[in-house]
Amino acid sequence: MEKISLSEKEIPTHYYNILADLPEPPSPPLNPETNEPIRPEMLEPLFPKALIEQEVSREKRIEIPDEVMEIYKKYRATPLYRATRLEKLLGTPAKIYYKYEGASLTGSHKLNTALPQAYYNKQEGIKALTTETGAGQWGMALSLAAKFFDLKCLIFYVRLHYQQKPYRVSFMRMFDAEVLPSPSNQTIIGRKFLKEDPNHPGSLGIAISEAMEKVTDGSIKYSLGSVLNHVLLHQTIIGQEAKLQLEKDDEYPDVIYSCFGGGSNLAGISFPFLSDVLTKKKKVRVVAVEPDTCPTLTKGEYKYDFGDTAKTTPLFKMYSLGADFIPPKIQAGGLRYHGAAPLVSHLVNKGYIETISVSQTDVMEAARLFTQTEGILPAPESAHAIKGAIDEAIRCKKEGVKETILINISGHGFLDLQGYEEFLDGKLAVQ
Amino acid sequence: MEKISLSEKEIPTHYYNILADLPEPPSPPLNPETNEPIRPEMLEPLFPKALIEQEVSREKRIEIPDEVMEIYKKYRATPLYRATRLEKLLGTPAKIYYKYEGASLTGSHKLNTALPQAYYNKQEGIKALTTETGAGQWGMALSLAAKFFDLKCLIFYVRLHYQQKPYRVSFMRMFDAEVLPSPSNQTIIGRKFLKEDPNHPGSLGIAISEAMEKVTDGSIKYSLGSVLNHVLLHQTIIGQEAKLQLEKDDEYPDVIYSCFGGGSNLAGISFPFLSDVLTKKKKVRVVAVEPDTCPTLTKGEYKYDFGDTAKTTPLFKMYSLGADFIPPKIQAGGLRYHGAAPLVSHLVNKGYIETISVSQTDVMEAARLFTQTEGILPAPESAHAIKGAIDEAIRCKKEGVKETILINISGHGFLDLQGYEEFLDGKLAVQ
Repeated sequence: MEKISLSEKEIPTHYYNILADLPEPPSPPLNPETNEPIRPEMLEPLFPKALIEQEVSREKRIEIPDEVMEIYKKYRATPLYRATRLEKLLGTPAKIYYKYEGASLTGSHKLNTALPQAYYNKQEGIKALTTETGAGQWGMALSLAAKFFDLKCLIFYVRLHYQQKPYRVSFMRMFDAEVLPSPSNQTIIGRKFLKEDPNHPGSLGIAISEAMEKVTDGSIKYSLGSVLNHVLLHQTIIGQEAKLQLEKDDEYPDVIYSCFGGGSNLAGISFPFLSDVLTKKKKVRVVAVEPDTCPTLTKGEYKYDFGDTAKTTPLFKMYSLGADFIPPKIQAGGLRYHGAAPLVSHLVNKGYIETISVSQTDVMEAARLFTQTEGILPAPESAHAIKGAIDEAIRCKKEGVKETILINISGHGFLDLQGYEEFLDGKLAVQ
Repeated sequence: MEKISLSEKEIPTHYYNILADLPEPPSPPLNPETNEPIRPEMLEPLFPKALIEQEVSREKRIEIPDEVMEIYKKYRATPLYRATRLEKLLGTPAKIYYKYEGASLTGSHKLNTALPQAYYNKQEGIKALTTETGAGQWGMALSLAAKFFDLKCLIFYVRLHYQQKPYRVSFMRMFDAEVLPSPSNQTIIGRKFLKEDPNHPGSLGIAISEAMEKVTDGSIKYSLGSVLNHVLLHQTIIGQEAKLQLEKDDEYPDVIYSCFGGGSNLAGISFPFLSDVLTKKKKVRVVAVEPDTCPTLTKGEYKYDFGDTAKTTPLFKMYSLGADFIPPKIQAGGLRYHGAAPLVSHLVNKGYIETISVSQTDVMEAARLFTQTEGILPAPESAHAIKGAIDEAIRCKKEGVKETILINISGHGFLDLQGYEEFLDGKLAVQ
């Protein structure tokens, strides 16, 4: 329960770009019609130029704009805690540290990228943003960021989670966002799936297709909450802060566990540490923890695939369960994605990141243990990292090993309580 | 949006006891059978001795136990913000500062008193606590505190809000608390009201009676979330921190607006400043803001009355709408109480605290404005203070007055989103 804070002056001023440290670059995205690499300007209908520059930049440090930093300072640096009460309960010689991004204004790490994305769009005269959201954390974050930078916001919210987590809809609406359950009847791809099943549960792949279909003129652009390089870039403020905070305890992690959906949380907490590995300064294990119902990294194929179900995106070299894969219904909606960030996929493929998958029941049980000892209710997504850390700490106990474990609690679970209620009642099923 | 933090070392080490500064003491609680003042030992069936001592103490500073401080440090000091974006939108010359207790582990200021209450009970060998909760924030706080200090916890949750805010039930259950909608069929008083109406909405007065009825032997004690001196005492850490934080900006408030239910939030934010008034060091206006549907201070009578509906408590000298008053159905469940803290009542009666009442619709509108500018979704209770501050800031604009306004956001509104949804849909009614 010990808290390690940073003063306002200690907040990192730049994002960290892992592309600068990679010995060989990841395979480029391809134009599906020509199989030629995508040129940056081909992305201009979708994204503002500043974000496209970040997408392809090889600069190691990219400055955080003042206007974004001003809002970051309202909730950053987020605290780093040592889980002393959890360690004690487990009787482990391991030290468990957790960064807490649930302390952000919208309750998850997603705000870290929503703010610069909204800012750069506003800078280039854009009037509105359209996006998808899985469990809803990203939709909440973009709703706030859009309102703060005076942009309209249209959100396609995967229907399963729109119904599971209705409070998130209300939160987005408090910021005047328009929120539609996806698949919706507002797009061609949406109507196609609704025809198959009027209560289709949806998926991130479908919602991405719907949002991209809405980019009809130059005044509206598309915004993505994970997967792409610039999104992962913005999240590196998490790991940079964690590193400074651990230094205050004279610590460096032996292993980092992270939940894995699209990759932004994993990149955020681990890339600043992987920088030390890539530059041969330190060693650290990084483990991606996936739901066993959507095992992209553990069971997917490393290949070129589409980022969305309508197959409208470029082809990305990534681990994928196939663009047509509709994941089973689970609570951790942020992890229900068929693909994976190309950067993370590359690092997995090169052996820098390990992967495991866990069951929903084990994850919720880990969340309960964490809540009861640390007093913080995690999002079900974040609970995947907790499950990984607890198992590691138990292994340390068995083997008598003193390890330092780091995780990121990417969001709080206040708006996931319907799922926890079902868990407590023994009614939580994977469908 | 500017944030003012305190370092861990700057967190106050003592609670502030306003009884030490009062020129004349408030009228004592009376035994309803004899009309004689209650002797402290008569409270021993209900509370541990340490809390009874605090209830009657005249010591100005009461030390915070180490075991409590250790947990406080996980979420304290809470941030103080200047509402620069809200000020700008209002175009006011006033400065608006807000303390943010929504940053606590359970999302409200209630944890500040739940922790020492659980701690002192545990110290004296108690095994279980029973309590009431209105909107549910207090129940959440006591659930966590009871689990942290290894106590069982039984909570009577006012049925209206049990139904309105079901996520709070789930949160309490995550900490193994037993939660019953009140009136329940587990008590004599509960059954009486259920007979009148099987879906009786309940009130804090009824829930207090039910919880007290459950104190049947020495191993279980009763815990209260507001009203009593020792509860108000624990909350003074809020105002003490705010004072230190404002000093860093060279500021002192001209006026403090606070929502008012039982009095613990108002006492928490204002008593450390009223100390300066009572000791003639400074001047500050303090304004209690109530819902117009439960106008205890603005329309109640200052008299001896019972704290609960079953009339089992001592008689307290306080503003009251009558122990039989069942408030209309509103979202701000924490403010639906017929009575008022005797200490606050005394200060109102002596002219140290002003009172106003506001409508639910105006409050929710103020909450929306605050959310959209400051990015923090307040609890509907806290939004009463926001409404007061906004009206004051508009007055400052009209009159060209530069005032410094201080409020406390006593809790976040993530678990009140069903009410906000109704508000956004224009369906929110007082019934």
